[in-house]
Amino acid sequence: MQIEIINTGSELMLGRVLNTHQQWLCRQLADLGFIVTRQIAISDEGAAIQNAVRESLGRADLIITTGGLGPTSDDITRDLIAKLLEKKLELNSEVLRRIENFFAERKRRMPESTKVQAMVPEGATVLQNENGTAPGLVMEVNPPVAPRKDRTFLIMLPGPPRELHPMFLQQVIPLLGKHFPQPDNFVCRILKTTGLGESFVEEKLSSDVKNFAGKGIEIGYCARVGEVELRISARGSGAGEKIADAEKSIRASLGTHIFGTENDSLEAIVVRLLTERKQTLALAESCTGGFISNRITNVPGASAVFLNGIISYSNEAKQKLLGVRTETLSQSGAVSQPVAREMAEGARAGSKTDYALAVTGIAGPDGGTEGKPVGTVWIALATQSETVAQHHIFRYDRETFKFVTSQEALDLLRQTILR
Amino acid sequence: MQIEIINTGSELMLGRVLNTHQQWLCRQLADLGFIVTRQIAISDEGAAIQNAVRESLGRADLIITTGGLGPTSDDITRDLIAKLLEKKLELNSEVLRRIENFFAERKRRMPESTKVQAMVPEGATVLQNENGTAPGLVMEVNPPVAPRKDRTFLIMLPGPPRELHPMFLQQVIPLLGKHFPQPDNFVCRILKTTGLGESFVEEKLSSDVKNFAGKGIEIGYCARVGEVELRISARGSGAGEKIADAEKSIRASLGTHIFGTENDSLEAIVVRLLTERKQTLALAESCTGGFISNRITNVPGASAVFLNGIISYSNEAKQKLLGVRTETLSQSGAVSQPVAREMAEGARAGSKTDYALAVTGIAGPDGGTEGKPVGTVWIALATQSETVAQHHIFRYDRETFKFVTSQEALDLLRQTILR
Repeated sequence: MQIEIINTGSELMLGRVLNTHQQWLCRQLADLGFIVTRQIAISDEGAAIQNAVRESLGRADLIITTGGLGPTSDDITRDLIAKLLEKKLELNSEVLRRIENFFAERKRRMPESTKVQAMVPEGATVLQNENGTAPGLVMEVNPPVAPRKDRTFLIMLPGPPRELHPMFLQQVIPLLGKHFPQPDNFVCRILKTTGLGESFVEEKLSSDVKNFAGKGIEIGYCARVGEVELRISARGSGAGEKIADAEKSIRASLGTHIFGTENDSLEAIVVRLLTERKQTLALAESCTGGFISNRITNVPGASAVFLNGIISYSNEAKQKLLGVRTETLSQSGAVSQPVAREMAEGARAGSKTDYALAVTGIAGPDGGTEGKPVGTVWIALATQSETVAQHHIFRYDRETFKFVTSQEALDLLRQTILR
Repeated sequence: MQIEIINTGSELMLGRVLNTHQQWLCRQLADLGFIVTRQIAISDEGAAIQNAVRESLGRADLIITTGGLGPTSDDITRDLIAKLLEKKLELNSEVLRRIENFFAERKRRMPESTKVQAMVPEGATVLQNENGTAPGLVMEVNPPVAPRKDRTFLIMLPGPPRELHPMFLQQVIPLLGKHFPQPDNFVCRILKTTGLGESFVEEKLSSDVKNFAGKGIEIGYCARVGEVELRISARGSGAGEKIADAEKSIRASLGTHIFGTENDSLEAIVVRLLTERKQTLALAESCTGGFISNRITNVPGASAVFLNGIISYSNEAKQKLLGVRTETLSQSGAVSQPVAREMAEGARAGSKTDYALAVTGIAGPDGGTEGKPVGTVWIALATQSETVAQHHIFRYDRETFKFVTSQEALDLLRQTILR
């Protein structure tokens, strides 16, 4: 089955925004067994849109377009597609009523231009928009316009994500199930690892992977700095069982380097582990400047386990707020094992938590010396029984440095909790 | 001039990664006056890649592909394109020498598979890879294979951003200047605003915009939560002057709501203003959980102006680390104007900074009450002369709530510094 996505928007072609629709729609469709075969982005220009749709009609069984359904002058997708398919636009009174309601409920005057969104190509099915005014549209296109065997479905969705997402989930998915009842059975499983480079992950899995190849199990690696994602996939009957077996064998090879699956984040796993154990955490951050606290507090429910964080950017803050000793700072310097340990121990003592994690380092681009180059970092973790410290040199840009450092620190905490 | 980008990668079609190459390349090209006319993403499959390249050769003057040049089995772009163009692959000894050096410098054994990257289609120009092993390739394709008037340039770039970015900037840009010396003169200017919704920005600019239309000046809005970006663009001779005039008139209408241009971030502007004035900042964050500190410390040089941040997630931390009084907490609750003020004043007194910014609120999804619903936030700013406080209700998901709150807080600080 050939599936194509067409994203319209001049801002995409000028590189002013990231095309998040592609990833979101591809992911949603893949999870249902529909693998997108081509994605196309074009600007909001008549010829570009018509050419792209015409060409896709020559290839695809399903085409999903995004954008260009709104009320403003650059919203031209609906008109262009209607013309291309030689369909008249007709006023749909149900859509108009909904648009009028939308404004009435918000006690706002309805601009005249808004009405154009109630114009629907003849024969099109309307997807109501619960979060905006532009409805989605579904058209069945038959030969010779769409030369696929029977028909091609053309689904037009509005551009704003908060309108597109619920419309896709609530209305497009049931529609796909009705018209394309048996997509290829495709099962995909993501395992997320940290603490190992991509080549080490591959090495540890080499015998597993040889084994998988004969069984039709594909394995893919997506390496980010500080994290390697494994993608295990298989198609056809028995795919689910194959994936489950493969996961078991990969878990045996990688052990606790696997911190989660699918959309798990390391911070969510840490908050879950602490919550389950009714344990608490304090943070003392220097070079990461609040990034670890921010990750932890992104997790709903973090307030039950995270009591406080101290961002001690200055030496005075390290002394006053964390009790780091003046002698330690003057003898070892702010970026040193003794200071990291005193930060962690000071944070734990001050907040009476089970764990306190501390980081001090040189994020750069300036501030490095020969003995302590940019990228130097000390991570310390204080627990009831001991304080451990790690040394790393992470040579990256400032934001990547913060991410990698936070990743190592959170993983040290995770591995310690699990011990 | 027709320009197409072809991104290869099965992970794109499975929705497992965002296609950042599209935005980056489109942006770089647009800044040079080259507007990409179509972008296509396809999986790492032979037929998909060859079909896409063949079709693009029928339309484009310039084609840029990304990905598929590496050493592993799913890196098939080089081979497929060579076959499509009926060019033999030849071992390039200079490339091989560089690959061997790459491993020798890192004291690593060179895997045999790596050598395939030194195979170059006959007639191709090599773009050396300073940050990896796969070279980029440039081929001039002539009619009848590429039916454009004279020739189509096909540029193949490696997938990893840290290899692709410098290769594009250092080698592709000069090449474009040589072969396409006169792109359409296109000038684009971005003005970034905060503190006004999109419709208010439009309203304030309505007379400007009418004026622009007659002069061939286009204006675009990109609204994000907490930030509206204005895009002013024009083409042809005199475009630069037109844009400068338009910017002047927009600045007169929007005043200090414009916080920056192009890639400026609000935090970078705040750090710059503080640095220029030799002033210092402390932060006391509750509901934003370190997000504001993280934004500030993302700016190189922030350590000169940012002394410390306290993330007082618990009431105990508010009392102990910021001196918030027990009575204030019990009488008004943690999310209240008096607590926000005491947090800011306590942070400023404790760290002896010029400014201290404090936020307390309910990020959700739980924790709201009838009187203080989820999304309630108090922001306070303590200065030498006074403490001001703001109340907002931001009904968003947790991470958006943090962003919008940080945006309002940083803008309050910026407007106060500028006063």
